[in-house]
Amino acid sequence: MPGEFEFLNWVRSQQRRDVIVQLPAGDDLAILRWPADDLLLVGIDQVLDGVHFDSTIHTPHAIGAKVMNRNLSDCAAMACLPVVAVITFALPRSVSPEYAKNLYAGIRDAGMAIASEDVSACAIVGGDTGVWNGPLAITCAILGRAAGITPIQRNGARPGDGVFVTGAIGGSILGRHMTFSPRVALARQLAASCTISAMIDLSDGLSRDLGHICDESSVGAVIDAAQIPIHPDARALCNDRALGGDRSPLEHALHDGEDYELLFTSPDCRDARAIRIGTIAAQREVLLRLDGADKPMRPAGFEHQLSSEKPAP
Amino acid sequence: MPGEFEFLNWVRSQQRRDVIVQLPAGDDLAILRWPADDLLLVGIDQVLDGVHFDSTIHTPHAIGAKVMNRNLSDCAAMACLPVVAVITFALPRSVSPEYAKNLYAGIRDAGMAIASEDVSACAIVGGDTGVWNGPLAITCAILGRAAGITPIQRNGARPGDGVFVTGAIGGSILGRHMTFSPRVALARQLAASCTISAMIDLSDGLSRDLGHICDESSVGAVIDAAQIPIHPDARALCNDRALGGDRSPLEHALHDGEDYELLFTSPDCRDARAIRIGTIAAQREVLLRLDGADKPMRPAGFEHQLSSEKPAP
Repeated sequence: MPGEFEFLNWVRSQQRRDVIVQLPAGDDLAILRWPADDLLLVGIDQVLDGVHFDSTIHTPHAIGAKVMNRNLSDCAAMACLPVVAVITFALPRSVSPEYAKNLYAGIRDAGMAIASEDVSACAIVGGDTGVWNGPLAITCAILGRAAGITPIQRNGARPGDGVFVTGAIGGSILGRHMTFSPRVALARQLAASCTISAMIDLSDGLSRDLGHICDESSVGAVIDAAQIPIHPDARALCNDRALGGDRSPLEHALHDGEDYELLFTSPDCRDARAIRIGTIAAQREVLLRLDGADKPMRPAGFEHQLSSEKPAP
Repeated sequence: MPGEFEFLNWVRSQQRRDVIVQLPAGDDLAILRWPADDLLLVGIDQVLDGVHFDSTIHTPHAIGAKVMNRNLSDCAAMACLPVVAVITFALPRSVSPEYAKNLYAGIRDAGMAIASEDVSACAIVGGDTGVWNGPLAITCAILGRAAGITPIQRNGARPGDGVFVTGAIGGSILGRHMTFSPRVALARQLAASCTISAMIDLSDGLSRDLGHICDESSVGAVIDAAQIPIHPDARALCNDRALGGDRSPLEHALHDGEDYELLFTSPDCRDARAIRIGTIAAQREVLLRLDGADKPMRPAGFEHQLSSEKPAP
């Protein structure tokens, strides 16, 4: 990339210090002073051209936002507070400094967009930029803190718990997989107001992600098809033969990935923002109740395919 | 990749809990209990096929080891203790589960190889695997702790300080850029036994990395060419027309990258493992003393080129 050093200097000018960030990017490592007696949560996620986005369609700002939002959604899934992130860019040689700045701005702005009364912005404190002959790839690692709420794992679901989602699902490929808002504040509010026994964010699709919770918790579930909030996009997909015309709206809601709504279990949740779709059961099988009959709900896999994706060689 | 889930389950079987790692990979984020009152250092680095390694030449174990060792070397550069790492793999579709396991094993084994009386192994606590049509890329983010030694930055060099390197440099392209040992324990021992005013690991080459220290510290330096420990590989390169025959051994030692030795400044270092190559000066210029004359030592840039690297389109 021509102007690589201009880009790196610009990135550095974006850094800020605060009570946790003692030394932001610029040295070999950033230095943080972690709040005393607060748990530290850490994860990492990437976006790859042709898999998670399509660089011929999506703007660099939207691509950058997505990698940060995927990480923020992981924080939401455990009801923790995102604090700081570090990033790597693998940039194609053809990329301009302007394009790279827009990628960075997308990440930065997504980190700022979660700021509210209850949640601070998530700052970028370091990174590495490489230029290569491959396609665009961005990786983001995130550090979060428990901040008064015990991190919610996937293994606490108990028979009798309700199964909830926080929004309509299915058909995210039509655009929402790039534009979703991670449910960071909502997760904190739910965890503060009711008992959440297990939680995950819907990235692989309802059938697979519920399978993760049930496997980890050694339980099963009965899901009521009529209660699943099906997104209009799932219906729209059915009218699009190329993308999803061979599946019903319900199938899209069950198996499409990248909704990034929360899926959780709770014995006592009454929050109107959570939609109850079923109940955890002792028998280790996930059943879908449809038209009065229970049938096994098997994960149909994460089959999110970008239209630009080329067949395997 | 066929067998992707087998690989993910195998990765998970590699995880261990300890006093810091409360919950390793498997949930959305790993949960750590950071030692009270200890600084947290965080960084991230990547290796890209055709830039940092050549997948047609190097083994997956060596490629995995390199991404971890680059991060461990960043920890060495600040004299901090590596604690845990998280990883992303962007895998070509053709990659087998066996190959992916060898990448992972290389990372894991590099994290274990630093373990000694003074230093604990660095554990992998999370990650994300993606399969795409691009080349192999691996990113590793690392968390370290100060553990009793104030992190050493790049900005503390003062006029009169000696300039030191911890080993012979130049010509790493002949193989050492894949096989180096990060100087984690040595950095800790040096920092405990003398005053280190600034430190960096030699990744971009002596001329450029010394420039980073001088820029950050607002100083200059005089480097004595006769004192620079030139690696035999730098001499061997001069006999290889294709790779480096147009440069002298000294030029390779000055400008080649990826030695991963430590470059530091100190007013009082007497450790036999550190080789003094010059002195920090107040005047903001880096000079090379050669045959009795001082000439500006300008960074010739990081020109490490893998033989397989294709020209820019």
